[in-house]
Amino acid sequence: MADTVGSIGERALVERLRARVVTPRAHVHLGIGDDAAALEPERGMLQVVTTDALVEDVHFRRAWTSARAIGHKALAVNLSDLAAMGAVPHSVLLSLALPANFPLVDFDDLVEGFLELATLEQTTLVGGNLTRSPGPVVVDVTALGAVRRRRLLRRSTALRGDELWVTGAIGAAAAGLACLERGLDRQSLSASQLDCVERYERPTPRTRVGRIVARVGAARAAMDLSDGLADAARQLAESSGLGVAIDGNALPLHPGARQGDAMECVSRALSGGEDYELAFAVPARGRRRFLAAVKRAGDIPVTRVGSFLAERGTWLDLDGERTPLERGFSHF
Amino acid sequence: MADTVGSIGERALVERLRARVVTPRAHVHLGIGDDAAALEPERGMLQVVTTDALVEDVHFRRAWTSARAIGHKALAVNLSDLAAMGAVPHSVLLSLALPANFPLVDFDDLVEGFLELATLEQTTLVGGNLTRSPGPVVVDVTALGAVRRRRLLRRSTALRGDELWVTGAIGAAAAGLACLERGLDRQSLSASQLDCVERYERPTPRTRVGRIVARVGAARAAMDLSDGLADAARQLAESSGLGVAIDGNALPLHPGARQGDAMECVSRALSGGEDYELAFAVPARGRRRFLAAVKRAGDIPVTRVGSFLAERGTWLDLDGERTPLERGFSHF
Repeated sequence: MADTVGSIGERALVERLRARVVTPRAHVHLGIGDDAAALEPERGMLQVVTTDALVEDVHFRRAWTSARAIGHKALAVNLSDLAAMGAVPHSVLLSLALPANFPLVDFDDLVEGFLELATLEQTTLVGGNLTRSPGPVVVDVTALGAVRRRRLLRRSTALRGDELWVTGAIGAAAAGLACLERGLDRQSLSASQLDCVERYERPTPRTRVGRIVARVGAARAAMDLSDGLADAARQLAESSGLGVAIDGNALPLHPGARQGDAMECVSRALSGGEDYELAFAVPARGRRRFLAAVKRAGDIPVTRVGSFLAERGTWLDLDGERTPLERGFSHF
Repeated sequence: MADTVGSIGERALVERLRARVVTPRAHVHLGIGDDAAALEPERGMLQVVTTDALVEDVHFRRAWTSARAIGHKALAVNLSDLAAMGAVPHSVLLSLALPANFPLVDFDDLVEGFLELATLEQTTLVGGNLTRSPGPVVVDVTALGAVRRRRLLRRSTALRGDELWVTGAIGAAAAGLACLERGLDRQSLSASQLDCVERYERPTPRTRVGRIVARVGAARAAMDLSDGLADAARQLAESSGLGVAIDGNALPLHPGARQGDAMECVSRALSGGEDYELAFAVPARGRRRFLAAVKRAGDIPVTRVGSFLAERGTWLDLDGERTPLERGFSHF
């Protein structure tokens, strides 16, 4: 019988994890293995901290998604939050609740997916927790980063007249999830559908864009798109005491999400969650500066998808008409 | 029908939580409500960070324990880890996975128990996460604190000849759990048994002792007793490259845990987990200084329960005989 996490026990699992953590960076005064980790904050920097969890059968299904992708995504969604603040990630904590019969090989793969992205993002695993779960796998991650105080990107600082910009293509993750839900065989998918599945399972956090845009002060406000574009636009606007109009004719819908009529496509682009792209409020006069910053971050596509208004509310401009947008989505 | 977390939705829950958070302290640059929180670290201090989760039917049962106690304990176990490092807690994150039918009144109580302790400990809730769980309630907490670099208490710095000291009484939480497991009616319990149940459900983190002992440099190493005294002694010794002998005739067993013969009592004192007392390695010549520090922390009882040896291994001294102690306990 294959080894399970229950058969080898907590201490051995911690050792297994610890052995895989590459040499910690200079800011780690004390890493895994004590009651807590101790970090040396960089002088003059704010410490930015966030936590987000992936829960089996709510955020992923083990039948569809590899343990490696789960580990990757659990970290990615947290790094996305740091990116939205303009922060550079430096440390992460991994708290796992696993059924006793969780295969050891899956534990290793989950950790591998997590650490692969951590290494890529020059972020050190400094601690965590392992416990048994009587049911679902729960992967709870806390990520810490740093940003200069004056460069912190918030949600609430957009101004009237600012433009709403978004990175990358949207609707991809929702389309990828739909492929998985329909039980489609990966070999039967088109290249763009496969890319959607990949983006759903292994989103790339926009850390580099976030930090560069923040560092040069090229955006007034930002947030990530975890719950979709309409939600992000609304939250940026509401917390800034503004309204927002989204340009339905400009939405950068991912090719793999283009199915059905135009209205269905717009709706998918607005409401599809989990893309982990970034939305920025950019002063109209600062557009060139913003585009230059994005270019330095690796020239990923960005699209202007709307603008902030004095009049409260979230609006959709489509074919010359402006209509109010309903509320989305809750995790319950 | 009573309201549930599923019926009111994530956003309303976040607002509910946010409304209860008292005015944050000066170190909180940006609290709940953005993609992440931003903290202003105190200059010259290490940032200490830890995460620990309570999982339903692994760490608590809803039939036995109130939501308020669960909220309290989820925070307490994390603050205990900070205390063991000598750190002063300043910020916490609360990540909840809840079944959709979790009663709203229990949500409020859980948050109340959590925030009550947070307020007492002058710690601010700066962020978190709410998600649905398909099964158990999972309460995952991350706690951050600060300590001067030279004052950080570690596990690995005990020296041969150091004395092993422990705060408070031990075995209480295990005895309390046993009362709950036997389904005993609380009204049928003795005062000391009731105290054990209370200590199991609402442990008091030893933050004040930890920070004062650290601040005056009165201990060489420390760790908390989450998995019992034998485990803590062994881990302190092993990570310091030493052995340890525990004095079985000196163990401060809680009165509510005194059942059965002497050997049973010793065994309960050694292996009973979840007391969240602190174990310290104290230089023999520094005993008076240590006792003075403890006294300043509120005069809680401390007991010398052993000493560190050059010879590796964990030993029990009982009635003049020294025998090796077996390994304990795993969370799987």
